[in-house]
Amino acid sequence: MGPGGGATEKDLQQATRLGQLIAKKGWILLTGGRDAGVMEAASKGAQQSGGTTVGILPSSTRQGMSEHIDIPICTGIGSARNNINILSSDVVIACGNGAGTTSEIMLALKSSKPLILVNPSQNLLQFLRELPYSTPKVAEDAQKVIPLIQEYL
Amino acid sequence: MGPGGGATEKDLQQATRLGQLIAKKGWILLTGGRDAGVMEAASKGAQQSGGTTVGILPSSTRQGMSEHIDIPICTGIGSARNNINILSSDVVIACGNGAGTTSEIMLALKSSKPLILVNPSQNLLQFLRELPYSTPKVAEDAQKVIPLIQEYL
Amino acid sequence: MGPGGGATEKDLQQATRLGQLIAKKGWILLTGGRDAGVMEAASKGAQQSGGTTVGILPSSTRQGMSEHIDIPICTGIGSARNNINILSSDVVIACGNGAGTTSEIMLALKSSKPLILVNPSQNLLQFLRELPYSTPKVAEDAQKVIPLIQEYL
Amino acid sequence: MGPGGGATEKDLQQATRLGQLIAKKGWILLTGGRDAGVMEAASKGAQQSGGTTVGILPSSTRQGMSEHIDIPICTGIGSARNNINILSSDVVIACGNGAGTTSEIMLALKSSKPLILVNPSQNLLQFLRELPYSTPKVAEDAQKVIPLIQEYL
Repeated sequence: MGPGGGATEKDLQQATRLGQLIAKKGWILLTGGRDAGVMEAASKGAQQSGGTTVGILPSSTRQGMSEHIDIPICTGIGSARNNINILSSDVVIACGNGAGTTSEIMLALKSSKPLILVNPSQNLLQFLRELPYSTPKVAEDAQKVIPLIQEYL
Repeated sequence: MGPGGGATEKDLQQATRLGQLIAKKGWILLTGGRDAGVMEAASKGAQQSGGTTVGILPSSTRQGMSEHIDIPICTGIGSARNNINILSSDVVIACGNGAGTTSEIMLALKSSKPLILVNPSQNLLQFLRELPYSTPKVAEDAQKVIPLIQEYL
Repeated sequence: MGPGGGATEKDLQQATRLGQLIAKKGWILLTGGRDAGVMEAASKGAQQSGGTTVGILPSSTRQGMSEHIDIPICTGIGSARNNINILSSDVVIACGNGAGTTSEIMLALKSSKPLILVNPSQNLLQFLRELPYSTPKVAEDAQKVIPLIQEYL
Repeated sequence: MGPGGGATEKDLQQATRLGQLIAKKGWILLTGGRDAGVMEAASKGAQQSGGTTVGILPSSTRQGMSEHIDIPICTGIGSARNNINILSSDVVIACGNGAGTTSEIMLALKSSKPLILVNPSQNLLQFLRELPYSTPKVAEDAQKVIPLIQEYL
């Protein structure tokens, strides 16, 4: 999970790398499926490394979909699809800061999903410690996410 | 698309055969994903013929999922997910009569999706002719569905 | 529940009358909320008779909303909102034939909601008798719907 | 919007007071509708002051609903309904910290809804300043929310 608009250059690099590493492990990459930001970068990385990519689109058609999605799910339910992203994932990885991404972090907490934050905002982390949930795992970069995922599988 | 409960023996046979034929064409099979009726039979047929199966589950977890689903999408939105089944499909095939299946036929009409009915109820067909939409294609059996799908692709 | 586009003149008259009668009983009228067809006619009838009208809109804003809606719910989930219409109703009344309306009839059967059809298509009725659900009640006109509602309350 | 579980005593007092003040203004109170925490407290305050209360329930039935809801909307879509809460509101007021509430704050930012935070966490506020949205208005207590709402109407 990560921002479409507003992703930093570093977010995009981490997302591409994550996509590549996830694909090489033989895992399926699920994103919000749009042709923007972290979704696009991660899907591209995964598909180019031979992985399978699933895109849970907010829209009712494939308009605005990343060209690196193998399996598009057109939900037609807008941002309400964020909860489907979470419920359908075995492990949720948040890469970059954005309103949609933060909503997904919160929904992951609510449904007790394994949650890993890549290089998160310190202010977000401090806020998360106030909430009555176990604090998510934190990884400095994409490479360090992989062993954290493996702990959950 | 087809009933979970209430599928006839013939519906199940047609669904299994359809799953097999769809898989052999290299197409992805998308169903409602449950371990019941037409969803189960089609997913089993497709997976056993080497195909990829996507299941759009009504539930928020994989409980009640067919074991023949490769890519489970846990929507958590109940029967509202019927519309996601339709919007995500290139061609919608309805096999068997049921309330959920009929709701999906109606949603396919609404979103102008290619629609094929396998051995449908004559009463349903007559009702469909009253609606202001082009009448769906009808196939007598699974084998005859394949060339109809190809006309749409 | 009733068609937006494709409603007949008779459907609209019945819907307006139904709205009036529902309002006079002190019941809340819930529709799909759009400024079209049966939704518009029923909401107008109810509001002009002093009733309260709820509109469950498919859209994420109030664009396209009937001006006779007191309480708009902007779902942003398109036709997936049809299931919310059903789940939120104490008694479901279908007035007129359309794809969306028929999907709602089917969802009402699935969730075992009290269901009344106003002057329905004979072909639809015959198809409904094939499904493994109890056949909905049928009313010839709006006036005759009211005692049928009362049986359920 | 506010937490069901995990609401503090102060959150509940503020929520009840807010409900009362909103009702006295003649505004409609919309909450998540459950019989817990801030939803319950605000609905009770509003209903007891003669206001109208709408509850957008996550569930498909009224089980778990606050008894202070006048108009229940049974969505059956779980936490995906959080987006409906936001889209249906003219002004969004968040009272108390929780994962669901924070997801709603984020969705309010995404859909550019007027947003007021009652006595928010300083860590959350600092995180919000990092996001590419205008910072929400902040009120120390329920009383001070009312003029902020009026600025938006």
